[in-house]
Amino acid sequence: MTQRVIKVRTKPSYEIIIKPGLLSEIPEDLKANFSFGKVSIITDSNVEKLYGRTLLNLLQSSGISAEVFSFPAGEQSKNMDTVVMLSRHLIRSKFDRQDLILALGGGVVGDVAGFLASIYLRGIPFVQVPTSLLAQVDSSIGGKTGVDLPEGKNLLGTFYQPARVYIDPEVLKTLPENNLRDGLAEVIKYACTLKPKLFNFLEKNHHAVLSLKDKALLRIIYDSCQAKAQVVSKDEKESGLRRVLNFGHTLGHALEAYADYKLQHGFCVAVGMVFACRLSERLRLAQTGLTERVENLLKLYRLPTRISELGLKVDRADVPKIISYFGRDKKVWKGKLTLILLKNLGDFVFYEVSETKTLESVLEELL
Amino acid sequence: MTQRVIKVRTKPSYEIIIKPGLLSEIPEDLKANFSFGKVSIITDSNVEKLYGRTLLNLLQSSGISAEVFSFPAGEQSKNMDTVVMLSRHLIRSKFDRQDLILALGGGVVGDVAGFLASIYLRGIPFVQVPTSLLAQVDSSIGGKTGVDLPEGKNLLGTFYQPARVYIDPEVLKTLPENNLRDGLAEVIKYACTLKPKLFNFLEKNHHAVLSLKDKALLRIIYDSCQAKAQVVSKDEKESGLRRVLNFGHTLGHALEAYADYKLQHGFCVAVGMVFACRLSERLRLAQTGLTERVENLLKLYRLPTRISELGLKVDRADVPKIISYFGRDKKVWKGKLTLILLKNLGDFVFYEVSETKTLESVLEELL
Repeated sequence: MTQRVIKVRTKPSYEIIIKPGLLSEIPEDLKANFSFGKVSIITDSNVEKLYGRTLLNLLQSSGISAEVFSFPAGEQSKNMDTVVMLSRHLIRSKFDRQDLILALGGGVVGDVAGFLASIYLRGIPFVQVPTSLLAQVDSSIGGKTGVDLPEGKNLLGTFYQPARVYIDPEVLKTLPENNLRDGLAEVIKYACTLKPKLFNFLEKNHHAVLSLKDKALLRIIYDSCQAKAQVVSKDEKESGLRRVLNFGHTLGHALEAYADYKLQHGFCVAVGMVFACRLSERLRLAQTGLTERVENLLKLYRLPTRISELGLKVDRADVPKIISYFGRDKKVWKGKLTLILLKNLGDFVFYEVSETKTLESVLEELL
Repeated sequence: MTQRVIKVRTKPSYEIIIKPGLLSEIPEDLKANFSFGKVSIITDSNVEKLYGRTLLNLLQSSGISAEVFSFPAGEQSKNMDTVVMLSRHLIRSKFDRQDLILALGGGVVGDVAGFLASIYLRGIPFVQVPTSLLAQVDSSIGGKTGVDLPEGKNLLGTFYQPARVYIDPEVLKTLPENNLRDGLAEVIKYACTLKPKLFNFLEKNHHAVLSLKDKALLRIIYDSCQAKAQVVSKDEKESGLRRVLNFGHTLGHALEAYADYKLQHGFCVAVGMVFACRLSERLRLAQTGLTERVENLLKLYRLPTRISELGLKVDRADVPKIISYFGRDKKVWKGKLTLILLKNLGDFVFYEVSETKTLESVLEELL
């Protein structure tokens, strides 16, 4: 199958390579495109077993000096202690600015390894090899890195672009199904805001996507990466257009925080997208019918459309508390809360919200 | 006394303002030049007592909402735990991307606060108010931030430019004398490599400098900042010219590391400069007499010129071990050790060293 390439025009710019089976071609591609010393594979305890050793052997067979450093899988590892622990391993193994970090794993690995690369000796090059759909279509692209604090997620981090992103859709076949759906919520986000043709494709091809057919996966990953690449190329540091990527995320993040980060990100975003669509209709930005179409697509992909489906017990009395989380987002813009709403599929608006009562009333309908 | 302004042409660019008594003018200057919310003064336990409360009151009297966050003074605070502790304070005080960090203190405070600013919410603006001579002429300019690991100094950090640097030479009058000499070594470094006229000035005016006369301080700070600003404007990220700032630092860092970082940086650099000059003569890059002139200047400023003057017991048998530290520097360039040597005052060369025997023999003369 042909390889697809997407150029991300940040500073510095870099390429995303998408191809089934790409994993085994990484060593030769690295040698052909970069001049570097050793490679440090940063991964977590789950992915290490699945692909860490394989990739290490591939690199070493190509004559590349490489080591694997892993940390316990899970969001609870996404903190500064992990970054310090990995840094000390790298120093003791004499990694310097000529060496390369390879982030192999899902969103947590990419965020931690990218952050590490951005601060280790004040910055060494790194490449991303995302192994979850969420990481492939979202977190591996755009240069956001970071770790959590006890007070909240991603509170410390950098903007630091990878030198290259290698996406092999075949690795998704080893994912738990929940994990795939997590990423599908982000794919649907791109479809709603930026890629109406992808929306049509997702409606018509849900069997192919859910049964992980190569061609269908390649299409949804390519379209999603292209959407994200276009946005971050125009707005590298979140000063304007990039906020469109927050569609469904204001309520999504609020629900995650409200539930102490025990829920899956994509599931919360799914409900958040329904909320944004309903609000768009209520404010007469969108025509009636838009929400129904989005809800139906989410259902096709077995994604939740109501808060109760998240396993979260919420009644009317809790609604103001959830809404209060809206204001805590890093993306609150010059003190104003901006929601990303839709006029139609592929036609979004930044909407400054002042009507708390309307937010509450729409949210009550989604309990 | 007139204010001096130096423009640093990094990306983004910023200005260094130098003026005796400047401290009290900071609030109005901030309001005139930046749009921001709250100010967080980051300082250490020593400087907090000297200037922290004063500056806090000045800011608050100007109607600026401000808080002070301090940490225990000393290099042992320059670690990730301090950064995490400060971040958590900022989060709990609801500091966001519209707010401003003000780094008030010496090198450790500037490095820690700059690093914090560069990673807090992926970057918030900060200004430097350096209060030691070393920080005023060196560490506050150029955007290097960072913290130490148990394995070595400045191993984690970023390149992150301040929005402005405020230098008030009057604060130096409260410094312990040792601390001033620490900074004078860096002033002499600029004089040797980039500012031969400053070298002449330092030779003729050591009484005025050492008795902290305003005019003399202003001159040496201005010339030094100008030298540093020129270099970092041309080479922001240490890929070429910036290495000139390492004059005297290869041996200097080796001695610091050898002595477990218990020695003063400037004192080690002073001996390192004598080493670099002697080596320049030995390799017939420089004419005989250069070393003597540099040594005499160092002595005028009561800076050490021999290892024994550092209070370090070293004999011939230890020389190879000290030399072995040369290779551990972050600045080892593509695997080659490059020393900054002099042909003459103001006329430096990057010299790739291969003759270990020559290094050892010159070092033995400096025991």
